[in-house]
Amino acid sequence: MPRQTNHRPKRLPVITLISDFGLADPYLAEMKLAILRQCANVRLVDVTHGVDPHDLQAASIALERAVAAAWAGVVHLAVVDPGVGSPRRILVAAVAGQSIVCPDNGLLTWTWRRHGRGKVSAIARLPRVISATFHGRDVMAPIAADLAAGRKPRISLRAINDPVLLDLELARMTAAGLVSGQVIHVDHFGNATTNISAEMIVGNVSVRAGRHSLGQVRRTYSDAAIGHPIAIIGSSGLLEIAVREGSAARKLGLRVGSVVSADRWRRS
Amino acid sequence: MPRQTNHRPKRLPVITLISDFGLADPYLAEMKLAILRQCANVRLVDVTHGVDPHDLQAASIALERAVAAAWAGVVHLAVVDPGVGSPRRILVAAVAGQSIVCPDNGLLTWTWRRHGRGKVSAIARLPRVISATFHGRDVMAPIAADLAAGRKPRISLRAINDPVLLDLELARMTAAGLVSGQVIHVDHFGNATTNISAEMIVGNVSVRAGRHSLGQVRRTYSDAAIGHPIAIIGSSGLLEIAVREGSAARKLGLRVGSVVSADRWRRS
Amino acid sequence: MPRQTNHRPKRLPVITLISDFGLADPYLAEMKLAILRQCANVRLVDVTHGVDPHDLQAASIALERAVAAAWAGVVHLAVVDPGVGSPRRILVAAVAGQSIVCPDNGLLTWTWRRHGRGKVSAIARLPRVISATFHGRDVMAPIAADLAAGRKPRISLRAINDPVLLDLELARMTAAGLVSGQVIHVDHFGNATTNISAEMIVGNVSVRAGRHSLGQVRRTYSDAAIGHPIAIIGSSGLLEIAVREGSAARKLGLRVGSVVSADRWRRS
Repeated sequence: MPRQTNHRPKRLPVITLISDFGLADPYLAEMKLAILRQCANVRLVDVTHGVDPHDLQAASIALERAVAAAWAGVVHLAVVDPGVGSPRRILVAAVAGQSIVCPDNGLLTWTWRRHGRGKVSAIARLPRVISATFHGRDVMAPIAADLAAGRKPRISLRAINDPVLLDLELARMTAAGLVSGQVIHVDHFGNATTNISAEMIVGNVSVRAGRHSLGQVRRTYSDAAIGHPIAIIGSSGLLEIAVREGSAARKLGLRVGSVVSADRWRRS
Repeated sequence: MPRQTNHRPKRLPVITLISDFGLADPYLAEMKLAILRQCANVRLVDVTHGVDPHDLQAASIALERAVAAAWAGVVHLAVVDPGVGSPRRILVAAVAGQSIVCPDNGLLTWTWRRHGRGKVSAIARLPRVISATFHGRDVMAPIAADLAAGRKPRISLRAINDPVLLDLELARMTAAGLVSGQVIHVDHFGNATTNISAEMIVGNVSVRAGRHSLGQVRRTYSDAAIGHPIAIIGSSGLLEIAVREGSAARKLGLRVGSVVSADRWRRS
Repeated sequence: MPRQTNHRPKRLPVITLISDFGLADPYLAEMKLAILRQCANVRLVDVTHGVDPHDLQAASIALERAVAAAWAGVVHLAVVDPGVGSPRRILVAAVAGQSIVCPDNGLLTWTWRRHGRGKVSAIARLPRVISATFHGRDVMAPIAADLAAGRKPRISLRAINDPVLLDLELARMTAAGLVSGQVIHVDHFGNATTNISAEMIVGNVSVRAGRHSLGQVRRTYSDAAIGHPIAIIGSSGLLEIAVREGSAARKLGLRVGSVVSADRWRRS
């Protein structure tokens, strides 16, 4: 067993990183070095750099997951930025004591929906000597580093109240008690997360995904036989369609946008 | 050259991470944030998150590599957990002064085989308010953080002596001096690592992989001509089949399970 | 907003890492643990581990990007090493106050071209007890750790002046004012970076990539309509061919080696 150390080390700055950069090019390292240059002791946590290029909805969902897993003081730097160099704004948003730095293109949407709207500022003007193609490295990373270090950003900000929000489909509940939603994310295992939250599932429901009946919502993957589909509440508190030790996406033909429903009365 | 600093900084907590999560989803970040929340100054080292979903043998081999490369006090968190939510146990194992936190499904196998059996405990009961689908984040990460920080885990543990072990094939030596084994891992370069350890190779042997004769065990990749196959002792101390600046897996048709032999007497 | 902390934490050691190891095998973790063992508080920044196996040109370009993004005292460890175990030398190079540790196979080329030639040393002899197949872990990582910690490496070095350099094609300018170069890198987005630097583009030029006319050099991606090709100066200061929110590589059939030209007089 390891040796005894201090019981609780003091808080260190933490920045999480979300982008569509992939991991094969040096862009992510350039952004991390820009952060470390300003905030040497920051802890950097990669959330994902594998969202499809310019896929704002997927990045918005990943950002929300980082916010849910973090705590007051953590900074999130989300750089999916097809509009770089255009007049699109650059934002600093405060949610639950955490900070988000991102371009103003809808990345905040999913976080606002699940954690409430926070205060948002936009940078007043771009610094003079920067590239026109990599504001993640040249503008947003230094702001995130300042915030993580507990410093006022060297760039001036002004409050705004109209950040761009994505027009995401919401799950709906009909008067007859049918909850209807969509798959919003398919993960590495082929599990399909929906926009139906645990709170919308009341009592015994019967779940359908595409043309498939899945019966009741169960507790965990191992409540199904191996290779069989199952509906559960996933680790993000959302209804999830899975196949035990298999891919629900492949087996049931699910993808982002596929319709999923939970019906209180129907017997499947 | 960089400036002078302290000759040897004091030990910091280190946790290595092994999973089948891939890198595109936020799961790994959620687990890392759960660790950093409890142990802010821990050094996190990703070993692999690219084993095939639920491939316990591959994860077991990667875990052993991490143990071999680490030192007393380092903690390894291995989360390949198809049985999450089922009654499978969660283990804390001590090997060579290091700690391993993992589900009880065989992940310890390869480490025990190469580093000897250590003491193993299982958590006495799951904490109350956790997800049923992500014990890596909700149970194992906090235990790993406590161990890395040198604290007694807040969850109670009881010693066990019957961890699940995988039924892995072993290399065998016949009375006639023939060593017969299998490919256990094919790496990114197409090199095929076997379960035949350097100690089993005595004197001049002639190596066969599948239907291919590779002649004697050589010292390093560059002892073959470019594009030619070669048998060497790889960096993990195991017999490895390679093709210089090429892929042995592709060129020789090798994959996990392919038979490899080393014969002291045969002339190829 | 986060709490106030020290304005500028003291410098911590930083090592960037470049390799062709991929991320699925434990090799990168073994190298990182070898570093952390010697230099516990080092900040490790992955530049890329996704260059094609043994692709020295791509690794050389990635290394230059890391040097450009870093500062005095930062150490770069570049391990693309098809000649491991052969008599090829192992180098420590000093460029712009930074250090590079790499095998002597041309990895320095692009850095020298863009940042000037620096002093280079080679290790005098290999340490005795090491693997013949993983000098990145067993030789280069400990040297990088020593340099990052500001210590004299425990291994002796002697100055050399003949490091191996790659025979890379250079962009050329004709008397008639035509600049002709090649694509040197295609990134994750399908953007094609060329070896034509911003300084070679004088006045209004007309750009061609393969058989395609791209007109003048514009400022940023959003100066093109979505799906349309554009020539810009990328974030590395080199002429880049892009397609707004699309892949120039796919749309224009570009790859490493494709000819790109910028003509001061031609009207397209």
